[in-house]
Amino acid sequence: MAITVVGSVAYDSIETPAGRRERCLGGAATYFSLAASFFTEVRVIAVVGEDFGAEQEAVFNARSIDTRGIERAAGKSFFWEGSYLDNLNEARTHSTELNVFAAFEPKIPLAYRDSEFLFLANIDPVLQRRVREQMPDVRLVAGDTMNYWIKDHRAALLEVLKGLDVLLINETETKMLAGKNNLVQAARAVMALGPRSLVVKHGEFGATLFHRSALAGKGAEFRAPALPLEEVVDPTGAGDSFAGGFFGYLAAQPEFTPAAFRRAMFYGSVMGSFACERFGTERLQQLSRREIDERFILFRELTHLD
Amino acid sequence: MAITVVGSVAYDSIETPAGRRERCLGGAATYFSLAASFFTEVRVIAVVGEDFGAEQEAVFNARSIDTRGIERAAGKSFFWEGSYLDNLNEARTHSTELNVFAAFEPKIPLAYRDSEFLFLANIDPVLQRRVREQMPDVRLVAGDTMNYWIKDHRAALLEVLKGLDVLLINETETKMLAGKNNLVQAARAVMALGPRSLVVKHGEFGATLFHRSALAGKGAEFRAPALPLEEVVDPTGAGDSFAGGFFGYLAAQPEFTPAAFRRAMFYGSVMGSFACERFGTERLQQLSRREIDERFILFRELTHLD
Repeated sequence: MAITVVGSVAYDSIETPAGRRERCLGGAATYFSLAASFFTEVRVIAVVGEDFGAEQEAVFNARSIDTRGIERAAGKSFFWEGSYLDNLNEARTHSTELNVFAAFEPKIPLAYRDSEFLFLANIDPVLQRRVREQMPDVRLVAGDTMNYWIKDHRAALLEVLKGLDVLLINETETKMLAGKNNLVQAARAVMALGPRSLVVKHGEFGATLFHRSALAGKGAEFRAPALPLEEVVDPTGAGDSFAGGFFGYLAAQPEFTPAAFRRAMFYGSVMGSFACERFGTERLQQLSRREIDERFILFRELTHLD
Repeated sequence: MAITVVGSVAYDSIETPAGRRERCLGGAATYFSLAASFFTEVRVIAVVGEDFGAEQEAVFNARSIDTRGIERAAGKSFFWEGSYLDNLNEARTHSTELNVFAAFEPKIPLAYRDSEFLFLANIDPVLQRRVREQMPDVRLVAGDTMNYWIKDHRAALLEVLKGLDVLLINETETKMLAGKNNLVQAARAVMALGPRSLVVKHGEFGATLFHRSALAGKGAEFRAPALPLEEVVDPTGAGDSFAGGFFGYLAAQPEFTPAAFRRAMFYGSVMGSFACERFGTERLQQLSRREIDERFILFRELTHLD
């Protein structure tokens, strides 16, 4: 079943202990799409500038990702510059240039209207909401956000949360959004804002799934590990790739059973782990479904008693 | 099979966001013994002062822990004071008084000599080594240490590591001991110092098992989760309780198979999670084997796909 995703398609300049890359293809919607494309059909809504060319377009085409919803505008594409020199778990942002995203008015192409799944990748909640309103009949809506929107655009974000089935955010964001320091208490408070399910990403420690309906009884529902990697080359996009693996797998299932959610958490961790192995989207571009399934088995071995 | 454990039996004054306790029974050997006593016979080697009375003795007796190796000396028992006000994952030490431990000469009671398992809980590596030398024929030796010994008593610690089968330390200690920032690389470097297996404890994120023999192929062997708790009352002793559950379960198995190690990791996490639920040893004192097995099942549900 097709997923429509709205979010940034951007250029990133990244510095990590493994090296530096200038202006590589990035953005939340890019990582999400590439990861999800291994599981289901993906359609992107974004805006890019005149600096977005055939080479970048080809990255999407190679994974059969529908780019008809990527608008071309006069000016430059979204640009982010960051480093992970002290701490591989948290980026230090040096510069964010919205550029063409500043005046973006998302429009859903007709060909996208039958999408049953919608993913609101990390972007201004005002844009997330405009897309959500244009797609009222989707079966499942998931989304992401970040500390900046939580702190300074809370009212707009709260509107988005009301319309979400699943929210995927990291642990710091969960606690910040809830104003609580304990993970279980924070998860409960966040789900009271709207989402029926919450996936809290813990970086190198995987992710925890909470369901609102089940929380009273037992706290967390499921915890997926992350693979301890010998070398983390570049963590940029790992969270978006997790979301792509998670939501892509879920969108391909006939029913959203507890078992489907668990496997989706595993596929999320699998895609996040691959994303870190090379700079930018390099690893996701060269990945095969066979490698994904092999790593799924490795994750099972890493966590299962028998 | 009986475990002999050497380590501190002490008084702790603890402050956490949940409150404060003065001079409650603590010490690495105390937590370890209580946790391991649910799985196998435990014998303690330690020294206490004149302030150690019938009430403290009764805590060990209630779990049928052999205390004939706890020597009484003139003076005061080991005392530790710490708080977790900013960060529940890391204690801030306000005061450590070795007291009777400063001149401790550990002697192994005759009744302990047939122990097949030896645990060297966190204490001066010189004492760990003296105990190890008096028990050359044990089947399996495991041990713990801490940042203080790693930084300032490295030569003595390296001697201890040579004689260990399994080392259990936390992630910060692993990286400090190895001088490496990547977990897998640090694990390999630590095992090159002696231990065939390494259990890296991640606090609220569980623990990772590494085997020297398997590391070349696939990195970590197994990752056990920790339970996301609604309220962490007091994390003191969680790591020692993990070690007690882990080693206690292992000591009760006929063979140290990969499956036995995996289950031992789970029992370690189970015991660590209980330890945090009340102050000091309160929860471990009031625990039942039925509760332990129920939580084991909960941990399985939290991590297993089916």
